[in-house]
Amino acid sequence: MSSQKLSNSVKRIHSSAIRDLLKHSKMEGVISLGGGIPNPDLFDTEGLQIAMDRALSQDGHNAFQYGLSEGDPLLREAICRISADRGIDCTPDDVVITSGSQQSLDILARALINPGDVVVVERPTYLAALQVFQLADAQFKSVGTDGDGMIVDELEELVKHTPIKAVYIVPTFGNPSGVTLSDARRQQLVALAKQYDFLIFEDDPYSEINFTHQTFRPLKSHAQAMGASENVIYTSTFSKILAPGARVGWITMPGWLKSSVVNLKQATDLHTSSLSQSMTRHYLETGRLPEQIKLIRAAYKQKCDALCTALETELGDRLHFYRPLGGMFLWATFKETFNTTEWLKTTLSNGVVYVPGEFFYCDNPDTSTLRISYASVSEANLAVAAQRLKASLPQ
Amino acid sequence: MSSQKLSNSVKRIHSSAIRDLLKHSKMEGVISLGGGIPNPDLFDTEGLQIAMDRALSQDGHNAFQYGLSEGDPLLREAICRISADRGIDCTPDDVVITSGSQQSLDILARALINPGDVVVVERPTYLAALQVFQLADAQFKSVGTDGDGMIVDELEELVKHTPIKAVYIVPTFGNPSGVTLSDARRQQLVALAKQYDFLIFEDDPYSEINFTHQTFRPLKSHAQAMGASENVIYTSTFSKILAPGARVGWITMPGWLKSSVVNLKQATDLHTSSLSQSMTRHYLETGRLPEQIKLIRAAYKQKCDALCTALETELGDRLHFYRPLGGMFLWATFKETFNTTEWLKTTLSNGVVYVPGEFFYCDNPDTSTLRISYASVSEANLAVAAQRLKASLPQ
Repeated sequence: MSSQKLSNSVKRIHSSAIRDLLKHSKMEGVISLGGGIPNPDLFDTEGLQIAMDRALSQDGHNAFQYGLSEGDPLLREAICRISADRGIDCTPDDVVITSGSQQSLDILARALINPGDVVVVERPTYLAALQVFQLADAQFKSVGTDGDGMIVDELEELVKHTPIKAVYIVPTFGNPSGVTLSDARRQQLVALAKQYDFLIFEDDPYSEINFTHQTFRPLKSHAQAMGASENVIYTSTFSKILAPGARVGWITMPGWLKSSVVNLKQATDLHTSSLSQSMTRHYLETGRLPEQIKLIRAAYKQKCDALCTALETELGDRLHFYRPLGGMFLWATFKETFNTTEWLKTTLSNGVVYVPGEFFYCDNPDTSTLRISYASVSEANLAVAAQRLKASLPQ
Repeated sequence: MSSQKLSNSVKRIHSSAIRDLLKHSKMEGVISLGGGIPNPDLFDTEGLQIAMDRALSQDGHNAFQYGLSEGDPLLREAICRISADRGIDCTPDDVVITSGSQQSLDILARALINPGDVVVVERPTYLAALQVFQLADAQFKSVGTDGDGMIVDELEELVKHTPIKAVYIVPTFGNPSGVTLSDARRQQLVALAKQYDFLIFEDDPYSEINFTHQTFRPLKSHAQAMGASENVIYTSTFSKILAPGARVGWITMPGWLKSSVVNLKQATDLHTSSLSQSMTRHYLETGRLPEQIKLIRAAYKQKCDALCTALETELGDRLHFYRPLGGMFLWATFKETFNTTEWLKTTLSNGVVYVPGEFFYCDNPDTSTLRISYASVSEANLAVAAQRLKASLPQ
């Protein structure tokens, strides 16, 4: 008996190499710019505690009992109100609660991708999304990004001669790229989806973490205005603004997809934790979320500013980067030929780790890139980290 | 844009027909013997509240933060102690926490089943398991059951000329069959798995709900004694003894499978709700579980006895059934040619519903069967339900 019993699909995926790389990040004295997790010091533990108390005292057995596969109707109503604030018009019937964005993507891949279907991703792209599309045996194509996000002209060239099933994109405060798709490109992308009849998986975990006074209208909202609503499937989550451990996210989708997604959710895990859903709904009812988002925005912005200043000061002549407009990540590129995977050994011995950029590519990796996460690092340590990175440079 | 975009695999599954059938079950005055959910009146809400309070006050940020894909190490340790009580020898490394048994089965199907692989199920079998194997494009074969569970001699005839990948079985207090595999057949089944090199998916949600003084040794335990441990993958859950809404289950598996299951869990939803895991672990630490299990056992046994007595009195000449030794379900068969799906219309108009048996077959449905769930019905209503069933009989 052995691994020859494994399915072909599971053989296509591997443990996140990042996880192995970052084993060292918890070593004494090492400053980690690697992890992609929210800063736990900013959790509204008081508010979450109040919400859980209400969930248990007011929802009675429902917080412990089986629930609907599509999710708590009252939570779906609350999500529609959040969506309206983001410019998306939807009803609770358009929404299915999932156990976080990762599950949203997995369910969408299973519902929509046949083996060999072409999925276009950004270069660089979010790794864990690649995993679920790999499981579904998708074929990947990639399109480059610049300071305005995905270079949609490149996509247009591609779709002229290659039929594609879908584009997967994090348009706002991307992970890992840190960049944001411009409004003009958003409209261009949606128009292409309509013209060439492909789907857009719009993954939006970070848009509330906005450092600017601009609003970045979701692709789904543009699509609704442009008669292309059926082409855009929108996913979001409470993980980055509330509590990732609760595992509560959602999919907003066109009507033709709904029953398949609900069937898959039922087959996958019946429904998302009733406790987590109940707590999330009661938290939203406390009205504390807007203040909580303000707090996260201000704290992450301050860290991001500190990082940018330190990087410019210490490494401005060697590294190029776009200043993030929001989110949790900064993407930097060496101006010279460089291998950041190799370099990690040196920086680790100098007490700082990051994620080498090559792990975020489905093809043609640029080894001169790196992802820096500032969300959970103090401003003082961000400055020290930049100094240590500088000290690690080959002379 | 339309459903032609859907994947081939999602087209293979459908919403549970039972769900539609049971829409009526919440109508005023209708007694439902249909649902398969635990009795919420027996939830230890006080204990769960204490456990959640401790989770939030003692685990700090960890209850809200991202966790390990394989699950909380302390909860996995506690599961090993529960497993030892059931006769299964395992370490935390052998265990992966899932979001309930449904997810355990889905992950196992994805990890192990290639299109066309033969999966053998009991006739009748648990429906939702069929869904995940259908998603993986398995081919089904079925084997009959009697009062001693799966007729393993039939399986032996099958495997002599058909290579099979796996047997899926609920050996103890089966759903829907209500029957329990005898000890002799357990050993026979494990020996066959070893000889013919197939896997056994042992699904064990109900074994703690034991109405007898006998113990029913898990297949996994037999396999460990018989040098066939690599062949048996064991799944269980806290859903039936604690709180199904928390969505906490587990898989105990051989070493060769572990990393694939962890990778899949990560790709599926990163990890199971930290809140649910934390609450479950603290509940176990209160030491209240044994008392809680005693309570459920006694209550379900009393209901089961009341149901059996009422069925014998009212319908003993028309219906045959095996008295359950535990669990939540009784399976009955008309002694005459009968169609329980058709009959449901009549019984509904007389104020009682059940699940027609034909929905629990992957092939050759026996339409003269029905599944009766007694877990959430009062003894008085079980008696009334039996009278209403009798009054619904064709003369």
